Amino acid sequence: MGALVKLLRVGAMGEERPAVLDGEGRVRDLTGVLDGADIDGRFLAGGGLDRVRAALAGGDLPVVDTEGLRIGAPVARPEKVVCIGLNFRDHAAESGAAIPEEPVVFMKAPNTVVGPFDEVLVPRKSVKTDWEVELAVVIGKTARYLESHEDALALIAGYAISNDVSEREFQLERGGQWDKGKSCETFNPLGPWLVTADEVADPQSLGMRLWVNGELRQDGDSKNMIFGVAEVIRYLSWFMVLEPGDVINTGTPAGVALGMPDHPYLREGDVMELEIDGLGRQRQPVGQA
Amino acid sequence: MGALVKLLRVGAMGEERPAVLDGEGRVRDLTGVLDGADIDGRFLAGGGLDRVRAALAGGDLPVVDTEGLRIGAPVARPEKVVCIGLNFRDHAAESGAAIPEEPVVFMKAPNTVVGPFDEVLVPRKSVKTDWEVELAVVIGKTARYLESHEDALALIAGYAISNDVSEREFQLERGGQWDKGKSCETFNPLGPWLVTADEVADPQSLGMRLWVNGELRQDGDSKNMIFGVAEVIRYLSWFMVLEPGDVINTGTPAGVALGMPDHPYLREGDVMELEIDGLGRQRQPVGQA
Repeated sequence: MGALVKLLRVGAMGEERPAVLDGEGRVRDLTGVLDGADIDGRFLAGGGLDRVRAALAGGDLPVVDTEGLRIGAPVARPEKVVCIGLNFRDHAAESGAAIPEEPVVFMKAPNTVVGPFDEVLVPRKSVKTDWEVELAVVIGKTARYLESHEDALALIAGYAISNDVSEREFQLERGGQWDKGKSCETFNPLGPWLVTADEVADPQSLGMRLWVNGELRQDGDSKNMIFGVAEVIRYLSWFMVLEPGDVINTGTPAGVALGMPDHPYLREGDVMELEIDGLGRQRQPVGQA
Repeated sequence: MGALVKLLRVGAMGEERPAVLDGEGRVRDLTGVLDGADIDGRFLAGGGLDRVRAALAGGDLPVVDTEGLRIGAPVARPEKVVCIGLNFRDHAAESGAAIPEEPVVFMKAPNTVVGPFDEVLVPRKSVKTDWEVELAVVIGKTARYLESHEDALALIAGYAISNDVSEREFQLERGGQWDKGKSCETFNPLGPWLVTADEVADPQSLGMRLWVNGELRQDGDSKNMIFGVAEVIRYLSWFMVLEPGDVINTGTPAGVALGMPDHPYLREGDVMELEIDGLGRQRQPVGQA
């Protein structure tokens, strides 16, 4: 087990450069060390984390001035974003759905992934844009037909916060396949960090919270997942080949607008804040597409 | 309007190089002309087709010896593969589904895309692996919130044959979200060519056929799509940002195993052949994962 690592990507959208948090919480630039490589599937599969640990131990990485600096998504260009639906009993109940007997799987367009502090856009013609705090798993190795939970856990590169933004009318009332309400522009803030797997002692014991305009809306814990992280990864590998850099959103606890009596869906000017224990905090202003 | 172009990628899986068919049907190597670029979103968005047309007109592209040469998918690394479900009345009927009032949208994992003559694998534990001949649209420019069919048609780079291989139990009986039965390894043979849009006079007048072990199973025509190509692209752009290189599978006509009385699902040793007018022909042996 190596040193603990929190990876991030900083800079303007599309021009992010790789960085790492040091032990004092300073952002240090990895551009030179990684020789032009980004934090992506190739990096994760090719021993990139070991290079970062060695550089951190060396201690001479340049400190980045974070004044006004944008933080991007901590993984560049995931090949796919796979999501587990209804993976908390209280959320299934508030959605009026049955408790699933096995994981419900859908996908988001990978170009929904944006930074943790970027604006989230209400789509044109949308009146039911909703939030979902989720524990995102980032895959570190190619996987197919995994036999055990141990094998599943061994291929996780790390964890991050995901906001699985959802348009409920598009998702539920426009034909029944959910991807249509999950893939809109800006619909997957990710980050602020990719926290390496060895830094998360137990992925099934993480508090997960989301606020809208300062009001606590979701207050869950990953211990209440119906299908835990290891089972989700093992299960998925029987239906698709998982690739390094893939992002798996593992489901949201109760407290979304869909499940509230007055359905307070997002509108321009709202602000979402998200937090998962050990994974940092996000904040997104809501705009209009 | 430039010269007609059929693009392809040849070589071992993961090592394909770009090529083009000349007027006599010979395969000509584009590696030198494209200077290391592949046929992908960046190529399509960056004027790659114009460079190929100029090179073809120049007439000095090296001819490739096709003896034993593998043909890959004609587009490298699509960012997403988006599919339209139930887009032919006869297929909706054979599936026991209602005629959709608007396009039904789902996604396949992009790493399902393989070459047009590659082996298709029946997934482990599958007993309902099925075929679907489809007209694939390849996107050439970024698109969001398109207003007209003209705008939609203008951003199509070209067309290809797609086999939207589907596992019906995974798709329909395991939670109801279709992606789970659409994303298995090898489930999207694509090609043999990317036929540029200007070479397809009318995408809504193309015969589409699929055979299994020499028996004609699907015999449709793109004129029978409920939502035509232009409407599908316009519609999708209101729910996601389309990117250059994206592959859109526009739906399958009747004749799949799901809709046949004896449900003759695919088994190891079967052979699928697919054809769409002007887009060439595919042939996939079926293996076991």
